[in-house]
Amino acid sequence: MKIIHHVIKMKTAATLDFIDITEKIQQKIKKTGIKNGVINIQSLHTTMAIIINEAEPLLISDMKTLLEKMAPRTFKYMHDNFEIRTVNMCDGECKNGHSHAKAIHLPTSAFLNIIKNNLQLGRWQRVFAVELDRSRAREISLQIIGK
Amino acid sequence: MKIIHHVIKMKTAATLDFIDITEKIQQKIKKTGIKNGVINIQSLHTTMAIIINEAEPLLISDMKTLLEKMAPRTFKYMHDNFEIRTVNMCDGECKNGHSHAKAIHLPTSAFLNIIKNNLQLGRWQRVFAVELDRSRAREISLQIIGK
Amino acid sequence: MKIIHHVIKMKTAATLDFIDITEKIQQKIKKTGIKNGVINIQSLHTTMAIIINEAEPLLISDMKTLLEKMAPRTFKYMHDNFEIRTVNMCDGECKNGHSHAKAIHLPTSAFLNIIKNNLQLGRWQRVFAVELDRSRAREISLQIIGK
Repeated sequence: MKIIHHVIKMKTAATLDFIDITEKIQQKIKKTGIKNGVINIQSLHTTMAIIINEAEPLLISDMKTLLEKMAPRTFKYMHDNFEIRTVNMCDGECKNGHSHAKAIHLPTSAFLNIIKNNLQLGRWQRVFAVELDRSRAREISLQIIGK
Repeated sequence: MKIIHHVIKMKTAATLDFIDITEKIQQKIKKTGIKNGVINIQSLHTTMAIIINEAEPLLISDMKTLLEKMAPRTFKYMHDNFEIRTVNMCDGECKNGHSHAKAIHLPTSAFLNIIKNNLQLGRWQRVFAVELDRSRAREISLQIIGK
Repeated sequence: MKIIHHVIKMKTAATLDFIDITEKIQQKIKKTGIKNGVINIQSLHTTMAIIINEAEPLLISDMKTLLEKMAPRTFKYMHDNFEIRTVNMCDGECKNGHSHAKAIHLPTSAFLNIIKNNLQLGRWQRVFAVELDRSRAREISLQIIGK
């Protein structure tokens, strides 16, 4: 039984950028030579989600619309009230209450099976890293376990 | 340490069919003889979710109401606009934008502990496969790891 | 490869109590001596969620507001209609339809990587157990796998 760790790095373009990371994950699994096992795909950011859905551009537009409706940028979040907030303030802190609000309803990680040295996915399933904040440098941590 | 793979097949009845798969999973775990480990229960479909909740019929009605309210069938999804959509169109493609919209807020997989050769669940916890599309043939992939 | 099981017990204070369990999990990982692996953090309750987000008090207020808006306590849930409900009724059953309704959109478990005998988390990521019901005695099950 082997455990292999890897990090995928990327630069996102904008809020609600959907980045299809399926191929990158698949390549990593191939390299490990692990035939049968599991993989954990973990976002290392509170405002980046990992979702499994279909890579159809109009559907991605729909998902953006729904996420924006659920946690609108125009809503007044207390997290963005820098007059009263004292915790976790950094230099150049940006208002991203909406990003965290979107995040609570989306998964931080995806755990998928590896069968015959392949990431097991259904016909339409693809793995996306979803940027909930603005354009950022991001890291996705992979942990691959199996034999 | 063993890794055992299994697929549960089923035919769902209708949109928002909640199928309690707890016993089927439990039987599989018993057969493996694995005493201590984990199981990943993964839907192989973009419009089928895996949720953990209570098997109380009125509660299931409530959940259907809420999912329908969150991503209504009557909403105009771009994914359903077959005049302009060019990607992933199959023969007899049906309008299921609402199914994908429901899916983004629900988990694709559940990862649970195995203790003493039993699926570990709290008193009221049951595992459901939830059909978000219409009646379909479906597959749930199980990966059981442990010793 | 080792598999180590542990249960975190707690008493929650009120509905939507956010309990930061990151340190407790970290201590458990340290004790196991496991250098490289994964951990599954599983709520054993249908009305307690496990979420990963930032420990900023105003943000937690925002999340409470959003969860309450999504599945309001004032909504009439059929699960709470004790005149017609016959299933899973216990002594002193309380109306908690809103708790289950909040639960369907939140994860029951979190699966995270262990790197160099540490729980791997991004800079702002913290693990919370979130009480969706009233003040209760609660259990979180940990399964730690690795070597």
